[in-house]
Order: sequence, then C-alpha cells, then structure tokens
Amino acid sequence: MWSGGYIAVDWGTTNRRAYRIGPDGGCDAEFEDEKGILSVKSGGFPRAVAEIRARLGDQPLMMGGMVGSNRGWVEAPYVPCPAGPETLAEHLVVIDAERAAIVPGLSYLDGNRADVMRGEEVQLFGAAATDLVPADCLVCHPGTHNKWVQLAGGRVTSFRTVMTGELFNLLRERSILSDLLVEDVVPGAAFRDGVRRGLSRESLSAQLFSVRAEVLLGQRPRSEAASFTSGLLIGDDIRAGLADVDHRQIIVMGRPELTQLYVAALEEAGRSAREVDGERAFIAGIREIVRQVR
Amino acid sequence: MWSGGYIAVDWGTTNRRAYRIGPDGGCDAEFEDEKGILSVKSGGFPRAVAEIRARLGDQPLMMGGMVGSNRGWVEAPYVPCPAGPETLAEHLVVIDAERAAIVPGLSYLDGNRADVMRGEEVQLFGAAATDLVPADCLVCHPGTHNKWVQLAGGRVTSFRTVMTGELFNLLRERSILSDLLVEDVVPGAAFRDGVRRGLSRESLSAQLFSVRAEVLLGQRPRSEAASFTSGLLIGDDIRAGLADVDHRQIIVMGRPELTQLYVAALEEAGRSAREVDGERAFIAGIREIVRQVR
Repeated sequence: MWSGGYIAVDWGTTNRRAYRIGPDGGCDAEFEDEKGILSVKSGGFPRAVAEIRARLGDQPLMMGGMVGSNRGWVEAPYVPCPAGPETLAEHLVVIDAERAAIVPGLSYLDGNRADVMRGEEVQLFGAAATDLVPADCLVCHPGTHNKWVQLAGGRVTSFRTVMTGELFNLLRERSILSDLLVEDVVPGAAFRDGVRRGLSRESLSAQLFSVRAEVLLGQRPRSEAASFTSGLLIGDDIRAGLADVDHRQIIVMGRPELTQLYVAALEEAGRSAREVDGERAFIAGIREIVRQVR
Repeated sequence: MWSGGYIAVDWGTTNRRAYRIGPDGGCDAEFEDEKGILSVKSGGFPRAVAEIRARLGDQPLMMGGMVGSNRGWVEAPYVPCPAGPETLAEHLVVIDAERAAIVPGLSYLDGNRADVMRGEEVQLFGAAATDLVPADCLVCHPGTHNKWVQLAGGRVTSFRTVMTGELFNLLRERSILSDLLVEDVVPGAAFRDGVRRGLSRESLSAQLFSVRAEVLLGQRPRSEAASFTSGLLIGDDIRAGLADVDHRQIIVMGRPELTQLYVAALEEAGRSAREVDGERAFIAGIREIVRQVR
C-alpha cells in the first residue's frame, strides 16, 4: 500500500501538518493549517481527509498524533513500553476503506505511576533513526506538556510527563500572578534563581504565591517575575525528569525558545545537555514505521 | 471616634460584608453584596462608602481586606510579623475627611521567603480574642489561597501562603484535566490516595498529568479524578504548611466544605486537627482593634 508514495500527517489538537512522500522517500510537497482534531465535527473526518488529498494527491495516508485519541477519527489504543518503531508498525490501526492508517500512542505503567504520549513517539523514533539523538539517552521534549523519555537501543523504555507549559500559560492568562507575568522569559539570573528554588523540593504552589509577595514587598523587580516563575516551574520539572532514570546523556529536543531554557536549567542542576531541533523528525519517524510495515 | 458605635467592613476582591456595631459592641444590622473592590471604578470609593452608610447609618467605618491593597481605596502598607491586634491598631490608615480607617495587612520576610496576607489577619485576631483558637497554635485557613499561620501569645509570628484553591479552580475550568474534574470533592479513599501522593515530594506538575493518564489507562475511575486531584494539591499544601514550623496544636478555620478536607488530609499526614468555623471572627477582630485604639 505504501510503496507508491504516501502522505504523512501530524494531526494534533489545534493544527495539522501534511507531507507528501514520494516512492523514493523524499518529501516533495507539504502544508500546515489550523484544522486540528478539535475543529473537526463528529463524522467530519472523511471530509477533512479528502481536503488533504485534494491538496497533496490521491495517496494513502499515514497519520500520527491526537487523530488517534478518543476525540480523534478512530481510536488507536496506547501501546505499552518498551516499544520501538516496529511496535508501532505492528499496532497500526488501518482504515482500509479510506486507505489510511493511524499510528498508536505509547503508555507507561508501573506499580506507582501511569503516563501516556501521543504524537511525540513518531518524532522521537524519527530522531533516533536519523541519528539526531543517540539510541541510548534521556530526551527532554518541552512543549505544553514536557516529556522526559528514556531511549535504550532506539526504543522507548519509560517516560514521564510534566504539565509545565500548560501551568505557566494558565498562570499567565488568568491567575493572581497574571499582571506580573508579562515580560518574555529569558534564561538569565532571575530564571536561574527560580530554577534553584524549583529544584529544592519545596511545595510548588507555595513558591508560586511567593512570587507575588516578593514583588509587593520590593524583594524582586516586577520585570523579573515571568522569568523567575518559569524557572520555578522548569526547576520542578527537571527534578521530576531526573528522578528514577539512568543519568545518561541528555538531549533537549524542541523549539529553540524552549530548549534554551531547559538547557540553562539543567546546567543549574549540574547537568549538561545538547539542544536538537526536532521539527523535521516527524517525517523520518513515519518513514521508519512505513519501512517496518513493508 | 469609635465609642458611639461604628460600621465594620470586610471588603474583599469580589464581595463585601458590612456590620453595624453599637456602642455596647453588639452587631445589630448587617448586609453582604458583590461590590468587591474590583467592581469599584477609579475614584468611586467615596460613593461606594456612602452606599454602606445609607444602609447601616452615618457611622465611622473600620475596614479590613483588599480595600487597603494597591487596587483598593487607599493603600495601607503591610506591617511585618510578628504582629498582634495592637500592631494593626498602631498602623491604621485613617481617612479623616471620611471618618474611616483601613486595617493594614501583614507581611513575612526572612532570608529565603516572602509572604503577604490581607484580610485574614483580622479574622485570626478575632478568633484568638474570643478563644475560638488558642493563643499558641498553627492555624490552617483554606480558601482561594490557603494560609498557614503560626500564632504565639495571640500574635502572628510567621505564615505561609499556598495557591491550592486557585490552582484547583484553574485546572477545573480550563486545563487538559477539565473534563475529568467534574464531580464534587469528597474526603474518601481517592482523596486520601491523592493526599499521600501529594505529601511524597514528587513533582506536583508531573503528578497532575498522571491523573489523566491513570483514567485513560483504566487505572482510576473517572468519577474519582476530582477528589484524587484535590488530594494531590492539598497533600502538597500540607507538606508546605508543616515545614519549618513548631508542630503544635493545629486548627483548621474556614468553611466546613473545605475544613473537612484539610482535617482528613492532616490525618493522612499523621496529624490531628480541630475544625473551627471562623465566619463571625471578623467582627471580633475589628472589635479588638477598636479596643486597642481607644
């Protein structure tokens, strides 16, 4: 089904990116729009898929991301860790009538802890397949929900999600701290101060209120509040990410404005890390899954 | 100014309560409305005050709460701890032309930590003056922002604020957890399970995401998510509240639906606590401050 070329779709909650992959594996056309799964009405996926083919050609579709969630087109149940691209290929949800397949997400479960991911796994395996990240390392993948992922032999053995990006946005948009969190976050002294406090195991929600108190009492300039608060959250995040894992090489993969913050915070925690821009790794991940299916 | 009777006003962010106190110290009339300070336009306080007198009589006003903040009528600067009702009486901000006075808030500062309170201090001193709480104890005062307050000899020696209520509301109203946080919070097994995890010093923002993962992976019924999440936040809160304080008698003061949760959570932490309904303590606190002024 895939040897004549196909369309790879990274279909998230609020947007989608589609790439046309030729028989030789090269990407020769692509587009991005804001038709994330939340904008597709019940029963509307065949039409939303037809739009993709109208733009990129009448090819089979290989899709990853929230399109396989319980709010997406067809649910692709989570596959437990450890898992590699071959595991995803084995558990594809194929919609024959539509010449389409959905890549499942990953789950992690042990006695104490449960976690899920959906979308990042394709990017991760693509990054590993193209040597952007080593086959054995700890990957930090910041975004709305930061993922700390342990890779061993190119497979995901465990991972942990931290709500850092979402909490920061909630605090900035409509909390008691909103009027303080207006400046851009920069990885300077205030940020690093916040990281040290976030690493300290004090209660995060107590430390968050103290930002307001410090500004009101003249202990911290208002202009530092956003960077300090981001530091608090990322310090707490790093404490979670470095817990219970082999402390091997750390790679921070994502958008540069975020990865630079995590690298600075890891330095405060006494760890060095390498930054990787993973934007193109999704295509490589889909290519790797297709290779395993053939 | 006060011996002929006065009006005590608890003027908060979103509502206000006013009580007419007679020459004998008794409260013989009162009302509550939603004219919190945020609803008063710039320059509008004299008129908002005139409304109070129109309803309760042409008496002097003794006011506490956010009316003394930088978004209130006249700013009453924070008074540092340790402080008692006599300290508040000494630092009243008197608006002579209006026959009105504003009670200042309290601040706490040491090398590591800053905190502020505005409004709770009047209620606390009132509770101490009427033996609702002992002169020496740790008071937990839950609300949008929970306050842990150390009282010694009836004076506040230190305190710590935790954003628990506000964070829970933000998560419930518009986060990835919103569709899970719909049931009422009850202090049963799921709540206690959350408290134990919150007490554990793991990252709060990692634990919050795990709520979603546990439900998606069938590890926890959806109906338990709200109680479990509240338990996580309150467990983290209690860990902050019991840090660095003398572990004396603990009083939980506030609305019963909240105090019962904190008492259950303190039990999980191996501590017993007594519940107190502090709703009427504000009047006693104002009475105590007036007594110190005379």
